[in-house]
Amino acid sequence: MSTQEERTLARIALTWLAEPGTRSVYRLAARLGPVAALELLLDGGAPDEKLRATVAARVADGDARAVAAEAVARTERLGARIVTPEDEEWPARLADLKGLRLLDAFRRVDTETDPPLCFWVRGGWPLGEALERSVAVVGARAATGYGTHVATEMGYALADRDWTVVSGGAFGIDAAAHRGALNAGGLTVAVLACGVDRPYPMGNTALFDRIADTGLLVSEWPPGADPLRPRFLIRNRVIAAGTLGTVVVEASARSGATQTAHRALAIGRPAMAVPGPVTSAMSVGTHELLREHPKARLVTGVPHVLEEVGRIGADLAPPARGPDRPTDALDDDARSVLEAMPRRGTVGVERLASRAGVDIRTALRKLSLLEELALVARRDDGYALAPAPRPAARRPGTPASP
Amino acid sequence: MSTQEERTLARIALTWLAEPGTRSVYRLAARLGPVAALELLLDGGAPDEKLRATVAARVADGDARAVAAEAVARTERLGARIVTPEDEEWPARLADLKGLRLLDAFRRVDTETDPPLCFWVRGGWPLGEALERSVAVVGARAATGYGTHVATEMGYALADRDWTVVSGGAFGIDAAAHRGALNAGGLTVAVLACGVDRPYPMGNTALFDRIADTGLLVSEWPPGADPLRPRFLIRNRVIAAGTLGTVVVEASARSGATQTAHRALAIGRPAMAVPGPVTSAMSVGTHELLREHPKARLVTGVPHVLEEVGRIGADLAPPARGPDRPTDALDDDARSVLEAMPRRGTVGVERLASRAGVDIRTALRKLSLLEELALVARRDDGYALAPAPRPAARRPGTPASP
Repeated sequence: MSTQEERTLARIALTWLAEPGTRSVYRLAARLGPVAALELLLDGGAPDEKLRATVAARVADGDARAVAAEAVARTERLGARIVTPEDEEWPARLADLKGLRLLDAFRRVDTETDPPLCFWVRGGWPLGEALERSVAVVGARAATGYGTHVATEMGYALADRDWTVVSGGAFGIDAAAHRGALNAGGLTVAVLACGVDRPYPMGNTALFDRIADTGLLVSEWPPGADPLRPRFLIRNRVIAAGTLGTVVVEASARSGATQTAHRALAIGRPAMAVPGPVTSAMSVGTHELLREHPKARLVTGVPHVLEEVGRIGADLAPPARGPDRPTDALDDDARSVLEAMPRRGTVGVERLASRAGVDIRTALRKLSLLEELALVARRDDGYALAPAPRPAARRPGTPASP
Repeated sequence: MSTQEERTLARIALTWLAEPGTRSVYRLAARLGPVAALELLLDGGAPDEKLRATVAARVADGDARAVAAEAVARTERLGARIVTPEDEEWPARLADLKGLRLLDAFRRVDTETDPPLCFWVRGGWPLGEALERSVAVVGARAATGYGTHVATEMGYALADRDWTVVSGGAFGIDAAAHRGALNAGGLTVAVLACGVDRPYPMGNTALFDRIADTGLLVSEWPPGADPLRPRFLIRNRVIAAGTLGTVVVEASARSGATQTAHRALAIGRPAMAVPGPVTSAMSVGTHELLREHPKARLVTGVPHVLEEVGRIGADLAPPARGPDRPTDALDDDARSVLEAMPRRGTVGVERLASRAGVDIRTALRKLSLLEELALVARRDDGYALAPAPRPAARRPGTPASP
């Protein structure tokens, strides 16, 4: 029986031998376990000719196990961590990628779309928890002022309602969505197509640092990995499958952003598009998506987005756990106040009252009750959810061991 | 047996007794004929209480038959004409209004949507022929620069492909669509909610004169009739039913323009909407339409519009009339050249060659052939379709007698 460390090393080595998403590798690892799968591949036993050639070329270049060990050491030096399906924080939702079949797929990135073998993560939040209530906001690099405005507003409004924003790391719509979420003090996740230590594009370095401080930088590639062109499309399946829905804000004709939406549709997740002026080249892709896919939904703002992902969110929410939880004793007002509490950070009474739809005196009365029940804690700058009922969240500076 | 003149007078009188579209009046006229229906109503024999009251109030105000005779005289003085279902130029398509049932209709204009009893028309084209290949382009009065631009381009491009543009007479999108069509030398039809002699709004007077010169001004109300508020909505059903499809370019929330689209959908015609910036109040109505009606189609330009109405157009096109037409002898190039000829006006050889997708020498060769077959005529300023194979079109200045 292999140890978890051996299995993690094998997963890293497999990721190095063939790009993430490669179906034959994923299936081999699922059937034999990563350690035996690695041994088989290194012994030249790949199940198909193409994979055998790929592995042979890689092996001629270096020792897969040594490369993996070096990646682990480098990850530790960075203060990042490696997350595998064996970790509690692994986002279970990614398993849906096993069923992803794109129509008319002719390029390799459209057929090799199986789930990731492991992630590199920078940032303190458990990955699965961060993605639990998340929406992807994606779009063109060469965004217009209009698109940038809409993406920033959308990132802000999602974060303000305690939804996690997920995007890539590109200029334009991606960066605007992250900035919006950061401005709202919310949680934002950048899924990169290169190492989490290697900001690409360089111009977004300061943004990546802000994201790593309060959100997450995530990648399927080890530290130092280059942002090779096909990796952006390989990465897109993770953005589509890791979130409850994908919104395309602006996209030119046949852009990568609309491909993320196609991946979302292919696994039954809502794909949404923001319309724009028909005179704008940056709205051609969103309009195409809306015209060509009967299931793609036109959205003009976060209320529309939440209509789509809310349904899915409700479906995926854990069922009630039994009759004797402290919240069962709450009346409607107290429940509203509790539900209006931000997932993270503190909130003032006035803001809370307005979010809960109650007057300030009611809010104060219900907060006292919630404090007594240890559901809410008073802080210097307002009220926060009490940490007790939530699963242990790893804070920045305490990375999990790989 | 009544004469056609008596029947026309009765239709006018009925239109005066109750607003056009009133279901009980339309059905009475359909069952008894307009003359007997008028007699019945004037004798106090209206089939329902409401209509009896409406008629009584009108009759207290004047003599219906005298009002009708005066309307006929005034129409003749104007150089306009009255068109009834007994005329060859009546647009048969309007009969579809008999089946119009709007969901959730609670206002009278949403339930009284039967076909018109007669039209007043200014302009030389036979009404039915003008509407045969027509698209409605409608939208907000308070259009933005974006909407005005899109409507003008759309009017131009439709007219350039020999489609008739149909709209109301309002500022904003309506006026822009007409101007686009006029700039392309095309046929445009303004359906008014007041008399055809009574330009409303006044600011569009010059536009109405241009439309009457080369296109048509059409109304269900006699000369001198006021543009009362409900009449705009009553009128909208004619725009929806008289055309092969309705495009809403810009509309605020719950505007009259989206109601035209709803009427089009209710009788199975394509309803289309042009998206715009989500930050624009003038695109709220178009986005609503696209979100709420699964059959409403997002269009970004005339090629998309023609995709929708083209199918309907093909359905409604008369079947081939037999094997011995002169066009049967044509080869592909000659047929392309003939099909590229504008429906009206002349075209230069270069433009024609480019529209037909042939080189100029081929175009000239095929034009000689088409001339010999009397399908095309050479003019001082280019080539035109020969008048012979087309139904006799009334030219301006030769109005039909009512």
